[in-house]
Formats: sequence, structure tokens, C-alpha cells
Amino acid sequence: MPHFRLTISYDGTEFHGYAKQPDLRTVQGELERALVQVGGTAETVVAGRTDAGVHARTQVVSATISREVKASRLHNALERLLPDDIGIKEVNDADPSFNARFDAVARTYRYFVLQTRWQDPFRRNTHWQIDSRLDRARMNEGAIHLVGEHDFSSFCRAAEGRSMVREIFSAEWNTDAPRVVRFEVSGASFCHQMVRSMVAVLVNVGTGKLAPDEVATIRDAKDRRAARGAAPPQGLYLWNVSY
Amino acid sequence: MPHFRLTISYDGTEFHGYAKQPDLRTVQGELERALVQVGGTAETVVAGRTDAGVHARTQVVSATISREVKASRLHNALERLLPDDIGIKEVNDADPSFNARFDAVARTYRYFVLQTRWQDPFRRNTHWQIDSRLDRARMNEGAIHLVGEHDFSSFCRAAEGRSMVREIFSAEWNTDAPRVVRFEVSGASFCHQMVRSMVAVLVNVGTGKLAPDEVATIRDAKDRRAARGAAPPQGLYLWNVSY
Repeated sequence: MPHFRLTISYDGTEFHGYAKQPDLRTVQGELERALVQVGGTAETVVAGRTDAGVHARTQVVSATISREVKASRLHNALERLLPDDIGIKEVNDADPSFNARFDAVARTYRYFVLQTRWQDPFRRNTHWQIDSRLDRARMNEGAIHLVGEHDFSSFCRAAEGRSMVREIFSAEWNTDAPRVVRFEVSGASFCHQMVRSMVAVLVNVGTGKLAPDEVATIRDAKDRRAARGAAPPQGLYLWNVSY
Repeated sequence: MPHFRLTISYDGTEFHGYAKQPDLRTVQGELERALVQVGGTAETVVAGRTDAGVHARTQVVSATISREVKASRLHNALERLLPDDIGIKEVNDADPSFNARFDAVARTYRYFVLQTRWQDPFRRNTHWQIDSRLDRARMNEGAIHLVGEHDFSSFCRAAEGRSMVREIFSAEWNTDAPRVVRFEVSGASFCHQMVRSMVAVLVNVGTGKLAPDEVATIRDAKDRRAARGAAPPQGLYLWNVSY
């Protein structure tokens, strides 16, 4: 069966997340509907599921179809068949063993925060807009406590019996536009809502509500109630996946 | 009656243009609905009407309401009452004679074009995405013919009996992001679809379909059929209004 590696990008605003759900508009639903039209059948595996409203600058999907189709033809057909909030960056032939989820060695996410008094309509779907000044140096002091291998139960939506031990390679706040700070975090894998929980805690460090050291205390509590809350979805992007 | 100058910003994607229309979602409709809730009644005049899908980074509206309300209270109330695709930048007390349309001495528009092979989902509502390379120097050679006082009938949607003579102060293509070119045009005032018609002609100069000098020929024809077409709305922003 022909097997492909799809590199896609999507604006998550109008999707109920990546994963297929009956009667809801999802990225996987749209993608498989298009794949079936060209390929007869479609089975897909995604590198990193995203929640409703979360974006992907780069997302990778492994896809198996039943009909013999050239990668370039599949690319053109998907471009034609997919809605314009999903972009197709690349379609490549893949080894039958390629699995977008299990073969990924690193995922990078970015989260964008706009410090603003007035709400900017052009960034309502892409940034978390907050009416506070954030101390970036302080947030980076806090972020250090998230790097390394830890049990991230405090930052994860519980999933019965699953380990919440994850390895984070780097976590840092930077700025590349006026009044915008962005969090970039890379790790082998992430549990559900992990990045948004990290951002919520670190923004509290940035406004002064929490001391940087308290990030370690929250982490060591290994209890969801210690971190609570999550930053809103629209600031989050799956930025890159490495194999 | 209290009179104000409102400086607003809106993402035009989900509006049927600025001007009020029965049963359609418009910027003026939303704005007046909110003003009536705070001010009892509302009469407004806008600096520059925009078509469906066209944005305003900065738009100015003069507004008269019947109830005495402080500018700061009006600002807060509008922020609370307006949908999040309209932003309120400033609310200022205005002289009773202030008229956002007739007192404006210059309007500046920007139009953004992305040269790309694949459609970027994040810019589908904000850029015209075209699969061609544009020669910016050539486009600027063409743009020169649009500066000055001219009869712009070739670039205007006809309006029975109205003069199409307009004064353009500057018209130039620049770039500030990879693969993006943006047209910035300033003038005393503009007729309907004028900027988008200019962009359509100049993009044809940029791809080589038209010679730069042909812009003068099209202009001198003073006939809508000479320029035809208009660039799509989503790349266009009312950028600034001067008084």
C-alpha cells in the first residue's frame, strides 16, 4: 500500500482540534476525507495532536492509501481538495515502516503572548493578549526548572495509569516583535495541555504572582492541582517535529 | 449632544464591509449597536468606507450620542460591547464640528502580496497569495504614473455623474518580510475599488504582462474597461488617516 509523509500547516481557529470526532470539523477529518477522494482509503498517524484553537506551523502525518498515486499528484490533489485553513507544505514517499508519531525524536512548540492594553483584532486568534507587563528574565529563571527529565504530573491533564515522565530539552522566552514574548519549548514528547500549563505558570512568574523558584515546587508536587489552569489555546503553535 | 472621535481597528474577514446594511454583519452596524447601548442614540461618519473582507489598521469615526458619557467610560463600554474583531484604540472628545470624513486631509492604504508556491493558511485572510515572482523595481516604475492629480476613471467603479479626479501623494512598493511585497499609497481621497484596481494593474507589471509605461496608457484611457479587475479584498488595509 502506498505510504507517504505529509508535512502540513493549519490555522486551528475553526477546527475542533486535530483528532477526528463525529460531526465536528477537525483537521484529521478534513485530511482523511481528501485522502480518500484521491487514494480510495486513508489511514493516518499524526506527530502531535493539537487541541481546538491550537495551530500547527509544521505538523507531520504518515498516511497510507490504497490506490497507487505519485507523491506530486497527491500533493496537487490535496491542495485542491483541502480547505484553505490547511496548507500542504510537502508530500514525500515514505518507507512503509515510517510512523509520524513513534519515529519523531523531538517536538518544538511556540506560544505567543501580546502585552497590550487594547485588544488587537488581528491577533485575537494567534496570541494570548494580556494587559500586564511581563518580566522576561524572571520567566526564564522559572523556565529552567522545566528542563530535563521530570514527572510532569502537575502540568498534565490526568490520563489513568499513564506515566507523566517527559524529557524537555530546552524552554526559553524570547521576543521578536514589539510587546510580544514567545515561549519556545522542545522535548521528546509532551502530555496533554503540558505547554499551555507551563505558560500559565510562567506568566504568573512574569507578572510577579509567583517566584521563579516556585516553578520547581509546583513541578515537585506532581499534582495537577498545583499548577492548575492553562493558557488559552490560540497562542499555541506546534512549530516543528524532528525525526 | 456629546461628540467623539473614535479610532478603531478591525479585521474585515467576517464583515460585509464597513457600511451598514440590513440583516448583514457590518462594522458600522456593530459599532452603532454598541454606541446606542451606552449613548441612547448614535450617528456616525467614517473616514474611509471599506468593502467586505478589507481591513482597517486605523479607521476614524466621528460619533454623536444623546447621553452625557465621559470619553473614558465610553471607551471601556465599547471594549466590553464590541465583538473581538473590532478593536478600540482611542476615544477622544471632539469639537461639535469635527467630521471624520470631510476633515481628513490624507488617507494611506497598504496592500500585502505574498509570493508563494504553497498557500499559507495563516495569511489566507490578510495577503493576496500568488504563485509568481514579482519584479519590484518594475512595479515601482509603473507606480510613478499614479502619483499626482489625475482623472482615475480607469481605476474606479463608476458612480454616475461623480468626478473621478483624485490627488495621489505617493505610491510605492516595499518589502518588510520574506517573499512579501506591500504597496503603500497615500492620497487626499480615493474612489471605490481604486487601490485594488491599482494593485491588479501593477502586479501585471510585476509579472511582465504589462510594461511599466502602460500604466500611463491605462490611466489616460479614463475608462474602467482599460484597467478592469481588482486585486482580492483580503490584502487591503486602511492604514492611516491624517487630519
